Amino acid sequence: MIATLSSTCTLGEKAAILRFIEGHGLRVHVGEAGATTIVSIIGDPEPGLAEAIEALPGVASLSLDAPRYPFVAREARTEPSTVKVGDVVIGGRGVVVIAGPCSVESEDQLLTIARSVAKEGAVLLRGGAFKPRTSPYSFQGLGQEGLEMLARAREETGLGVVSEVVAPEDIPLMNGFVDMLQVGSRNMQNFRLLSAVGEQPTPVLLKRGLMSTIEEMLLAAEYIVGAGNPRVVLCERGIRSFETATRGTLDISAVPVLKERTHLPVVVDPSHAAGKRSLVPSLAAAGVAAGADGLLIEVHDRPEEALSDGPQSLTLEGFADTMEVVGRIAAAIDRPIDHAAMGRDRP
Amino acid sequence: MIATLSSTCTLGEKAAILRFIEGHGLRVHVGEAGATTIVSIIGDPEPGLAEAIEALPGVASLSLDAPRYPFVAREARTEPSTVKVGDVVIGGRGVVVIAGPCSVESEDQLLTIARSVAKEGAVLLRGGAFKPRTSPYSFQGLGQEGLEMLARAREETGLGVVSEVVAPEDIPLMNGFVDMLQVGSRNMQNFRLLSAVGEQPTPVLLKRGLMSTIEEMLLAAEYIVGAGNPRVVLCERGIRSFETATRGTLDISAVPVLKERTHLPVVVDPSHAAGKRSLVPSLAAAGVAAGADGLLIEVHDRPEEALSDGPQSLTLEGFADTMEVVGRIAAAIDRPIDHAAMGRDRP
Amino acid sequence: MIATLSSTCTLGEKAAILRFIEGHGLRVHVGEAGATTIVSIIGDPEPGLAEAIEALPGVASLSLDAPRYPFVAREARTEPSTVKVGDVVIGGRGVVVIAGPCSVESEDQLLTIARSVAKEGAVLLRGGAFKPRTSPYSFQGLGQEGLEMLARAREETGLGVVSEVVAPEDIPLMNGFVDMLQVGSRNMQNFRLLSAVGEQPTPVLLKRGLMSTIEEMLLAAEYIVGAGNPRVVLCERGIRSFETATRGTLDISAVPVLKERTHLPVVVDPSHAAGKRSLVPSLAAAGVAAGADGLLIEVHDRPEEALSDGPQSLTLEGFADTMEVVGRIAAAIDRPIDHAAMGRDRP
Amino acid sequence: MIATLSSTCTLGEKAAILRFIEGHGLRVHVGEAGATTIVSIIGDPEPGLAEAIEALPGVASLSLDAPRYPFVAREARTEPSTVKVGDVVIGGRGVVVIAGPCSVESEDQLLTIARSVAKEGAVLLRGGAFKPRTSPYSFQGLGQEGLEMLARAREETGLGVVSEVVAPEDIPLMNGFVDMLQVGSRNMQNFRLLSAVGEQPTPVLLKRGLMSTIEEMLLAAEYIVGAGNPRVVLCERGIRSFETATRGTLDISAVPVLKERTHLPVVVDPSHAAGKRSLVPSLAAAGVAAGADGLLIEVHDRPEEALSDGPQSLTLEGFADTMEVVGRIAAAIDRPIDHAAMGRDRP
Repeated sequence: MIATLSSTCTLGEKAAILRFIEGHGLRVHVGEAGATTIVSIIGDPEPGLAEAIEALPGVASLSLDAPRYPFVAREARTEPSTVKVGDVVIGGRGVVVIAGPCSVESEDQLLTIARSVAKEGAVLLRGGAFKPRTSPYSFQGLGQEGLEMLARAREETGLGVVSEVVAPEDIPLMNGFVDMLQVGSRNMQNFRLLSAVGEQPTPVLLKRGLMSTIEEMLLAAEYIVGAGNPRVVLCERGIRSFETATRGTLDISAVPVLKERTHLPVVVDPSHAAGKRSLVPSLAAAGVAAGADGLLIEVHDRPEEALSDGPQSLTLEGFADTMEVVGRIAAAIDRPIDHAAMGRDRP
Repeated sequence: MIATLSSTCTLGEKAAILRFIEGHGLRVHVGEAGATTIVSIIGDPEPGLAEAIEALPGVASLSLDAPRYPFVAREARTEPSTVKVGDVVIGGRGVVVIAGPCSVESEDQLLTIARSVAKEGAVLLRGGAFKPRTSPYSFQGLGQEGLEMLARAREETGLGVVSEVVAPEDIPLMNGFVDMLQVGSRNMQNFRLLSAVGEQPTPVLLKRGLMSTIEEMLLAAEYIVGAGNPRVVLCERGIRSFETATRGTLDISAVPVLKERTHLPVVVDPSHAAGKRSLVPSLAAAGVAAGADGLLIEVHDRPEEALSDGPQSLTLEGFADTMEVVGRIAAAIDRPIDHAAMGRDRP
Repeated sequence: MIATLSSTCTLGEKAAILRFIEGHGLRVHVGEAGATTIVSIIGDPEPGLAEAIEALPGVASLSLDAPRYPFVAREARTEPSTVKVGDVVIGGRGVVVIAGPCSVESEDQLLTIARSVAKEGAVLLRGGAFKPRTSPYSFQGLGQEGLEMLARAREETGLGVVSEVVAPEDIPLMNGFVDMLQVGSRNMQNFRLLSAVGEQPTPVLLKRGLMSTIEEMLLAAEYIVGAGNPRVVLCERGIRSFETATRGTLDISAVPVLKERTHLPVVVDPSHAAGKRSLVPSLAAAGVAAGADGLLIEVHDRPEEALSDGPQSLTLEGFADTMEVVGRIAAAIDRPIDHAAMGRDRP
Repeated sequence: MIATLSSTCTLGEKAAILRFIEGHGLRVHVGEAGATTIVSIIGDPEPGLAEAIEALPGVASLSLDAPRYPFVAREARTEPSTVKVGDVVIGGRGVVVIAGPCSVESEDQLLTIARSVAKEGAVLLRGGAFKPRTSPYSFQGLGQEGLEMLARAREETGLGVVSEVVAPEDIPLMNGFVDMLQVGSRNMQNFRLLSAVGEQPTPVLLKRGLMSTIEEMLLAAEYIVGAGNPRVVLCERGIRSFETATRGTLDISAVPVLKERTHLPVVVDPSHAAGKRSLVPSLAAAGVAAGADGLLIEVHDRPEEALSDGPQSLTLEGFADTMEVVGRIAAAIDRPIDHAAMGRDRP
């Protein structure tokens, strides 16, 4: 049961509503996003209680059969939402490309890649400083040193910075350096982390878990938005199936399904799904054709020496070629690649 | 171990080669496609035997580490192969669209749909007369009556006809009516059926099994081509995963993976993967963007009354809209939708 | 909608019932098993028709919300059914063990294995003569020669014979040699084959498809029983998942789920699920503990030389050890291993 | 590359070894468990460096082709390890049963259940105080209040307490109340949490991720053991597959596979895999038959009123019946259910 409070509801009325509900043995969860306040009511109400709640001053409506994710559901807004990362708009008319290395490895590497992807039309730079790795013996990232390199790359290229956060206690540090916090696949159901990124204002790139349904991804987003941060972008990046020819199985259907179910922007990561460089251009093209608002692409100047994800990283040339093809498809469906943020001479 | 015979090998030499191999306790499987004859040698050869076989007159080469599917492997040809279905070419520059109802239900229904999809740019008509159904209590198709309706639709619209074959004994009957035999997902590893369609000349549309890897699909194609019929088109149609938001999970990566591994044409069936009409346009667009040579789309004039697959069938209007979007994407990547066969006025 | 005819319904009444239903534009499917005749009615009835059908002479009941598999559903019988294969009863108190090589390779091999497994308590002999293989270049079985060897092994050991049938046209030949026809995983939805084994009296061992749901398996069994052959035993043999440590993922839960949903006997094949010899004893033990009526185990006297499935075949000693452990578990749950058919001295 | 230090290596030698490796541009990760110290060397060594490292004083051996999880691999110990939780030994001869409600809901509930499961032979009590829930609107647990109830139940019944930890910052609080920390499925790859539970001494119950491979589970355990805590018990609890008849697919094969690959104890959770009460006894029996060292079972006195996981919780009677069957199987394979810790009158 979910009660939506009216925009004219006073704080006193709100407190009274909560007291009333809890006084009848139920629990409440209050979520606020912009002018909308939602009170989720947990437990089985006694007969007649629903009507009584609905009649309280300040309650706009009460839904017995509420959507499972009232904040992020498509019905929650009249039009799709957009998320601003610096001066880049994700979810608008243009397709946004986020590119960069899997891990930040050195300042030289990062600057070389950043300059190159910016020139080809990327508007945000990705790069991991804290790396969640399956093996404790794999390279775990440069930490703060990596964040500082990202900030310098931003300074030089103007690209906004996206980097993964792996624990709530790192958020203050990261917010000193990055423009968008990525929640990785393995943390999609790390609910403490979801709540923590929801309680601060930096935009969040939420990657789908390898094992997570679309429904679970929307509920993960609901944790963030319900905690107060509406700036969430969803990312499809391949799920697990029996097929071993690719690292993951890109669930391309997730793009139109998400577009039907939520107002949040959706981007596609063709690199992790493919696990193999040569497949990335086709998957990037498919993502845009399917309706994605953006792409997240791994690029490396010397992939064969990369400390992580080398086999799936595009070379600088490969990225340029991919942008060319993707650009033609994006233009054909009237969603040109967004270069605006760079003030470049491209259309 | 696989021996390739030289194009100048005589029949007498070939017989001697086989006798020699079998005389050493090994089994052979001989496959022929065009001028290429391949002798697959099964069993463990005694030391020195490989060299002895390689030295026999008529043996061009002997490969110890042969591809698992020598006839369909990318390496088997210098360029991609094309498959002609009537005057339609699958695997050439243009994108080919095959459309029609899941099941043939009546002559009126079929003609209405056929006329409409032909007008919008489909060049082949799909329609099931023999339906393999999960439940014995579901509609199993009209059988020969359905085939006759398909033939009449071809006569009127000029569209070539694609229909599913479910058993070897039906092939002679079907060949009186259809231009392309479809082997369905549930029969992808019905090896008797694969051999049977390989021993006759009608082109074959081989759909990927719900549970089959890309490797297994290529081996299934090898059964057909190795039996003598090189006219095979592969179809990705969604695999099983844990996700339940869609009927299948369209493995869009299969398109570029297949393009790397085989010279055979590849088409995408967005309808079965989606299981839901509203998702089909996005998946069709993604398929073409990913590099597919064609699409297989379910269309029905009154989907709500369809005897099978209604929820995933596009309406006539939906198909027209889909063709418009797909056409723009196809043109953007220089693979315009092929209307040539219809002699229509579209470019 | 499913109509059950009364046991006193005459043939004339039955014909009239079918005429009446078809006269109202609906299709029918008639299934008979023992004294039960079920008429499945396909299509949407006009208002009032259901009542009219129910009132016809000879109709016992009409169910609008019928089980999807009326013949095999648990509700169809008051107690579990048993299937007799020769003098072996599957589905009774005892646990039945079927053992033998994947493929029949030679008479010596087969007799050595058959004698050994009989001595250790197996009561049925498995062995493939027609092998459905993923690759056309793999050993495809000895065919009729293999069947003849199986028959000779039965003669010498008294073990009943189970062998796979891959096409309807082979059934008459096979019925001259075998006691139980196996329908393999890849053919679980080969509906022509299901109907064909349903139209003859030899018991059928139906293996679950690698990626078939339990529901689909029950519908496959319904094809067989509905066609007239109630002697069906279901076999769980591992499904496909993302895990690659084993060849398949043994869905042990399928045993209690099937026991709840159907009255048919259920056996477990630990060999194909494991794909690795060392895991077989644990999985066999788990199968019996979970409530299976029997086991299907691959055994080979020289697994390292086997033409198929060597790595997962138990050695003769391994089989003896496995029977010892399984025997203790079976006894502990009061379902002792059934040695009766052999007239052996074991309890 | 992994270097194992000798047990006589001095701290000075160790420091010199690390300096030497890092001086050549490589990174190191040092893990210690008991007397074993392992130095994992990350990066590509220059030619000749491996030999130089091996020759350093204090290096016992250098492995270029090291196991991916040197601390938990089967080869790391001559015999299986045991984990002591209070006076309960997991991994010894007896089978250990951990039982209790999904969530702690009230003191009455908890005591009723604890007394009952103790009486039937459980030796550890499970119960969640911090619940990671897919939806932000589901009951999230009682937090510290729940922990206090668990401690009181322990006091009264003598049962050791197992409860889930969801974030590193909760560990000090939890260690005041519980005997074993559970890391849940959704956190199996929350590497910060794994490190945190590895840096403290309380035993850890590590549940397999819903879509994690066995290999990934072992690497997750390696994070914990490598951080200093060897007291890890692995728990198979069902993975995701396409089958929807059960909540998860219990990967029963994981039991023997884990027994081959690691020396750590393995328990099975039949409740989460089943998702349905009626299937739990069969799966519990299968787990013990397959070789598990213990079971983790959800039990509730009034499952229909449970705030979480009611449908899969056994009733008190159901638990008693399950223990009876499981006990017979355990005895049959000479691994009697361990009641020792309770000082009860059962054998």
